[in-house]
Amino acid sequence: MEVFGDNSCPPPCNTLGFLQKNNSLDEKGRLAGQKNLLSCDNSDRDARFRLTETDFSNLFARDLLPAKNGEEPTIQFLLEMVDILTTYVKKTFDRSTKVLDFHHPHQLLEGMEGFNLELSDQPESLEQILVDCRDTLKYGVRTGHPRFFNQLSSGLDIIGLAGEWLTSTANTNMFTYEIAPVFVLMEQLTLKKMREMIGWPNGEGDGLFSPGGAISNMYSVMIARYKYFPEVKTKGMCAAPRLVLFTSEHSHYSIKKAGAALGFGSENVILLSTDERGRVIPADLEAKILDAKQKGYVPLFVNATAGSTVYGAFDPINEIADICEKYNLWLHVDGAWGGGLLMSRKHRHKLNGVERANSVTWNPHKMMGVPLQCSAILVKEKGILAGCNSMCAGYLFQPDKQYDTNYDTGDKAIQCGRHVDIFKFWLMWKAKGTIGFEQHIDRCLDLSQYLYNKIKNREGYQMVFDGVPQHTNVCFWYIPPSLRGMPDGEERREKLHRVAPKIKAMMMESGTTMVGYQPQGKNVNFFRMVVSNLAVTQSDIDFLIDEIERLGQDL
Amino acid sequence: MEVFGDNSCPPPCNTLGFLQKNNSLDEKGRLAGQKNLLSCDNSDRDARFRLTETDFSNLFARDLLPAKNGEEPTIQFLLEMVDILTTYVKKTFDRSTKVLDFHHPHQLLEGMEGFNLELSDQPESLEQILVDCRDTLKYGVRTGHPRFFNQLSSGLDIIGLAGEWLTSTANTNMFTYEIAPVFVLMEQLTLKKMREMIGWPNGEGDGLFSPGGAISNMYSVMIARYKYFPEVKTKGMCAAPRLVLFTSEHSHYSIKKAGAALGFGSENVILLSTDERGRVIPADLEAKILDAKQKGYVPLFVNATAGSTVYGAFDPINEIADICEKYNLWLHVDGAWGGGLLMSRKHRHKLNGVERANSVTWNPHKMMGVPLQCSAILVKEKGILAGCNSMCAGYLFQPDKQYDTNYDTGDKAIQCGRHVDIFKFWLMWKAKGTIGFEQHIDRCLDLSQYLYNKIKNREGYQMVFDGVPQHTNVCFWYIPPSLRGMPDGEERREKLHRVAPKIKAMMMESGTTMVGYQPQGKNVNFFRMVVSNLAVTQSDIDFLIDEIERLGQDL
Repeated sequence: MEVFGDNSCPPPCNTLGFLQKNNSLDEKGRLAGQKNLLSCDNSDRDARFRLTETDFSNLFARDLLPAKNGEEPTIQFLLEMVDILTTYVKKTFDRSTKVLDFHHPHQLLEGMEGFNLELSDQPESLEQILVDCRDTLKYGVRTGHPRFFNQLSSGLDIIGLAGEWLTSTANTNMFTYEIAPVFVLMEQLTLKKMREMIGWPNGEGDGLFSPGGAISNMYSVMIARYKYFPEVKTKGMCAAPRLVLFTSEHSHYSIKKAGAALGFGSENVILLSTDERGRVIPADLEAKILDAKQKGYVPLFVNATAGSTVYGAFDPINEIADICEKYNLWLHVDGAWGGGLLMSRKHRHKLNGVERANSVTWNPHKMMGVPLQCSAILVKEKGILAGCNSMCAGYLFQPDKQYDTNYDTGDKAIQCGRHVDIFKFWLMWKAKGTIGFEQHIDRCLDLSQYLYNKIKNREGYQMVFDGVPQHTNVCFWYIPPSLRGMPDGEERREKLHRVAPKIKAMMMESGTTMVGYQPQGKNVNFFRMVVSNLAVTQSDIDFLIDEIERLGQDL
Repeated sequence: MEVFGDNSCPPPCNTLGFLQKNNSLDEKGRLAGQKNLLSCDNSDRDARFRLTETDFSNLFARDLLPAKNGEEPTIQFLLEMVDILTTYVKKTFDRSTKVLDFHHPHQLLEGMEGFNLELSDQPESLEQILVDCRDTLKYGVRTGHPRFFNQLSSGLDIIGLAGEWLTSTANTNMFTYEIAPVFVLMEQLTLKKMREMIGWPNGEGDGLFSPGGAISNMYSVMIARYKYFPEVKTKGMCAAPRLVLFTSEHSHYSIKKAGAALGFGSENVILLSTDERGRVIPADLEAKILDAKQKGYVPLFVNATAGSTVYGAFDPINEIADICEKYNLWLHVDGAWGGGLLMSRKHRHKLNGVERANSVTWNPHKMMGVPLQCSAILVKEKGILAGCNSMCAGYLFQPDKQYDTNYDTGDKAIQCGRHVDIFKFWLMWKAKGTIGFEQHIDRCLDLSQYLYNKIKNREGYQMVFDGVPQHTNVCFWYIPPSLRGMPDGEERREKLHRVAPKIKAMMMESGTTMVGYQPQGKNVNFFRMVVSNLAVTQSDIDFLIDEIERLGQDL
């Protein structure tokens, strides 16, 4: 059996020394003074991985580090995993690869070609573990594929990926500087940059990375309550009057979830009417504030959405801020989806007024292509996060450490342990620069406009709302030929409602592409196309349209 | 300049074909029917990575995939990252490597040897990015080092690490089966196994992986409230009487944080007295329930801690469950730290009665060595998580999909997007088997007993409480010679209070080991030693004691 690609090359010489090169040591700048990364002295050579033949069928987890003599199998096992992963990465960007290989839950549970999900008492060999890993990827969904349009988060950024690999290798926790010194500082500096982009003076303020936009939004409601009714922290909601929160009927459901969880009650989250584009009507906000006051409620908090989930709508922040100032309300901007546009000189005007917000949610894992999870809650007032959440747990946050314990962030969070979400984002920012993110944003918005221009007058398409989309969201119905002559009415609506789910199901069965659909208000199921993946090109947009027509023409 | 370790081996032949071997195709069992992982046909050979010389100083993020011709630089960049990471992994297990290379925040912020944390508008070269990655690891803390005892989470499990690398490459989201089919099923099966270990009939019930123990505990309070006062979800806390929660004075602060966040008020979290070992005194619980009722409060929820943070104490669950049944209260068991002991036939009796709990928090990322983050909230009653948290967001959880949408978990969570925390844990369970986790637990507890036996009568040591530790927590004072003859009193207490922080600071400066300290109640600062890392041996315990004595003898 052939063992290596070239038999003239026996295993022991296969040192993975691919990095060495004649780099110019007189290169100036930031590398100066560093130990030369690319040098090839003996200690470095020893550190590089070497290839050996490894029989994983007789090896088990217990044979890896920290086992005696575990170093070699450990490295070989990790390299084999990397082979699986880099193959997956390459195929993800290859349009001849399917987006997914769909199976129903019962099929996967029954075990596809020996892929057994059940856990057992006895260990499996490392050979089987590697097979399990291949199968896990095989039956999954390629969210980085250029034809995956299903979610606001998509793409597979290579720098972000490398950052995640490093993060999991470092395997630490954000709660103290003591065990995450570099990551804590990276978080601090990155949050400051984000606050500068928002426009708060000198980037002052506070913030945290949280496990997602819903939790970030929950933080905003908590700190608003603490600001106006600090005694709720110790006494509970009975220490406050009956409080109400305001948010768009198009806003993310996490505001309602926060209202329910934090003890306001979901009915006390008052939904604001929107215009045909899904933007809050400021006059409706003011009317509802007055109405609530008249009924004896106390308005507390207004959420303005910057980039709504379905329509990609940007609420008029300045007009909402005027009302918040007039009635002394907390203004939160949910920019989970739209916050990324602050990186674009061309598009950031859509968030005009964001600098007047008291708090902002901004998820780099959406529009900026950062791997999941990466969400920030940013707060204008310093100290309020700690005031709201600290419980001064002496066993974790000792005040008598040798370093400045202001860098211990744990007591600001509702979490105790907190995953390192910052590194991949920091590394991407380093590698792309602010201008790289700007190009990413501008490119995705251009592609959406391309789609919009392509279908707005095309036969068989109907836009859900008129005009150029504010974000990358393009919302439309595909009308199969059988429905095109039918007069508007209940029958057509019912039939049209079933079109998008049918097309989507066929897309998934064929594995060619994925795009989201949903109803919204009185509108029956329509497609919501979004682009956040830098790998997408106009040809992928064309492909989507062709695919919808191919699958939908006979419905 | 020498380019490869052996010049007889030119670059083009360096195919990383290390996996091929003469594996026996007649091997029976689970691998049957699989495409042979180890075969070496042409398509496989093409997929494996090849080594080339790459000059990263002229390459940027924009040159990687999806860029045209980006495949080769992408693979080379990822391989170089893997070289950095595997070198780090090897050193982590090497006792001649320091645990950390401590620097103060201002030192890192000023830039160590060119390591610049600031972000800029322009991109950095990939060469600089790789240097940044090395520096990030260099100035961090090796939480997997066998002499890192600072946190309940420690160790660097190789299978778990490989699982995390795969998870970040798959980069998907747990909210729907649609985009995470395999991971959703793995979560479901793993939660069922965990419920079986708890002892709920047939492993029935519900659950979720959450971003950490604090959030899991918060879930328990939310669902308890929903169970007894479901109208709070819509109407807010004013729809309920004045509710109180009970938890040990030794319990994790997250119960209090949940009380504050969810609108109960931290003062309405009533702390229970404990015995000298830090275990709740059941009679105190009953007395405080009666007292609260007499004052017009309504008792709702009791948290029993299985493995307290500092003492490692296990509250007597059965006795607490009796009281909860008598007064019709929700019983939650916070097994974030101690839940892992359920995997050990020898130690699981410490959680006797856990099957009577309504909900359980269990963090595999602590005692079971799973990489951060991995925490589960497990619930006995099916459907209550969804009842409590669902907001039926039609745009995300469409009912008219082609598959069984009961597998869409998103609306059960307070999060929307949810990171894939399951895969690494599932893969470790596959690779180690239940018995592998059992061995891990038993070994760590044996090591703690070794430490306890070694110091309990040793000169210069004083145990914080008597008796063999219930968990791996060993709490003790080191008494420097200068304090040994001193009579107990304020002066000695003040001096002793400063001993642990001083020793800890010197440990960190010298980088040799790390162990936690804290005061607790009336006890001045003492060391809390914990073991959760499989890499630890008796020699590391011996080293810690030697180090404490070396650093502390002249204090």
